[in-house]
Amino acid sequence: MHSLQFTTESLSNGVVERDFTVDGVPGVLWSPAPVAGRAPLVLMGHGGGTHKKHPAMSGRAQRLVAGCGFHVAVLDAPGHGDRPRTAHDEAEIAELFRARAAGEPEGPIVVRYNDHLAQLAVPEYVALLDALQELPEIGADGPVGYWGINMGTAIGVPFVAAEPRIGAAVFGQHWPDVLAEKARRITVPIEFDLQWDDEHISREEGLALFDAFGSTEKSLHVNSGGHKELPRFEADSAVRFFARHFGGAVTERA
Amino acid sequence: MHSLQFTTESLSNGVVERDFTVDGVPGVLWSPAPVAGRAPLVLMGHGGGTHKKHPAMSGRAQRLVAGCGFHVAVLDAPGHGDRPRTAHDEAEIAELFRARAAGEPEGPIVVRYNDHLAQLAVPEYVALLDALQELPEIGADGPVGYWGINMGTAIGVPFVAAEPRIGAAVFGQHWPDVLAEKARRITVPIEFDLQWDDEHISREEGLALFDAFGSTEKSLHVNSGGHKELPRFEADSAVRFFARHFGGAVTERA
Repeated sequence: MHSLQFTTESLSNGVVERDFTVDGVPGVLWSPAPVAGRAPLVLMGHGGGTHKKHPAMSGRAQRLVAGCGFHVAVLDAPGHGDRPRTAHDEAEIAELFRARAAGEPEGPIVVRYNDHLAQLAVPEYVALLDALQELPEIGADGPVGYWGINMGTAIGVPFVAAEPRIGAAVFGQHWPDVLAEKARRITVPIEFDLQWDDEHISREEGLALFDAFGSTEKSLHVNSGGHKELPRFEADSAVRFFARHFGGAVTERA
Repeated sequence: MHSLQFTTESLSNGVVERDFTVDGVPGVLWSPAPVAGRAPLVLMGHGGGTHKKHPAMSGRAQRLVAGCGFHVAVLDAPGHGDRPRTAHDEAEIAELFRARAAGEPEGPIVVRYNDHLAQLAVPEYVALLDALQELPEIGADGPVGYWGINMGTAIGVPFVAAEPRIGAAVFGQHWPDVLAEKARRITVPIEFDLQWDDEHISREEGLALFDAFGSTEKSLHVNSGGHKELPRFEADSAVRFFARHFGGAVTERA
């Protein structure tokens, strides 16, 4: 049994936000208000350098919860958000900033550091899913998805590869090193985002990771623009992807 | 002045369907019922071997007209639908069937034949647009889009490259030969579909055509599956693409 402890609860725009810790790891659970009946769950992983309530997370959650009636949960990654940084975290971040300032490729450092974080985070996401499935409004047999881009993909690919409870996933914007081998073991439907003019991840690298997924049903969405210019409409597309696979109509925003 | 003559009119599911000829070329115009006010127009081009009212055309039109309130028009391509085949058409089709039966690549024949058809069809689409913009429910200054996959892309790329009135376009599933040079002159937003396991068009060929477009804003949607397995949800995505660029919400189907 894992220790799931809710700490705070608030209500905004028809969405209940509950902060929690699971085995001491801080997270947030967004649910439709009032919390009743059972609904699908989407676990999300945030990007590098951000945290569980970054606008990219809360914005996606708003779409999934208010738009589809789903539950959404995110954990702070190790060394991120409300979690302390270790000396190893500090050293890797310093190395990344040094490479960036020197105009050197960031990929090798990000790949290595994200792999380290994923090894810590995967069992945390398994524990999160175990704990959330004990809640009556989620339950043990409902659909569960995963959505994470950038570092969220670095954590999500090994998590989904190891976790048979995940039925559909949205990934994107990562190098194939380390991840391609795990992606081959993933067979559930996926949607994958990459940027055609990404200054860090080459087209060949992005396409190689998409190609690696073992899924019979997989979609790639490429958009013009740089690494940080993933269009907002891709969030809407991901929401429709989960609605298509888990049932339920999307209420389009005005 | 072009000669636009309406021949038959029917009403079904909130959509007015009007058959017409423009300078003798048969086409169909689908409009929201009742026909009143002004609304954006999407011109479509059908695939090789089909015709203006093939279910792929009427299904997309239903989404755009009933879902967005847009007008949609399609012409029969030369040698297709209600139009006679020339001796050249018959010879090219026989050559295509021969190559197919012999297990030879279809690409060189399709590229050559589609280029021939496009040279005939492009001025026909220009005349169509001229004539439709005379209608009070369309007008000369409203948004106009183009949507065509396969042969619809072979006709559409040179049409859109030559036609400044087109503000957004959906293309896909064609070889870059002949078309890439024209695609470089296209700068309006595009959405482009390709199939990851297309037995006729290689990944490199499909990606090369997408890459060629000069558009600042372009999106590529790749799906697993063969040449004829483009998922239906890509039609919904294309509809949302036009709704995003031309304004107006999409009414989702139940």
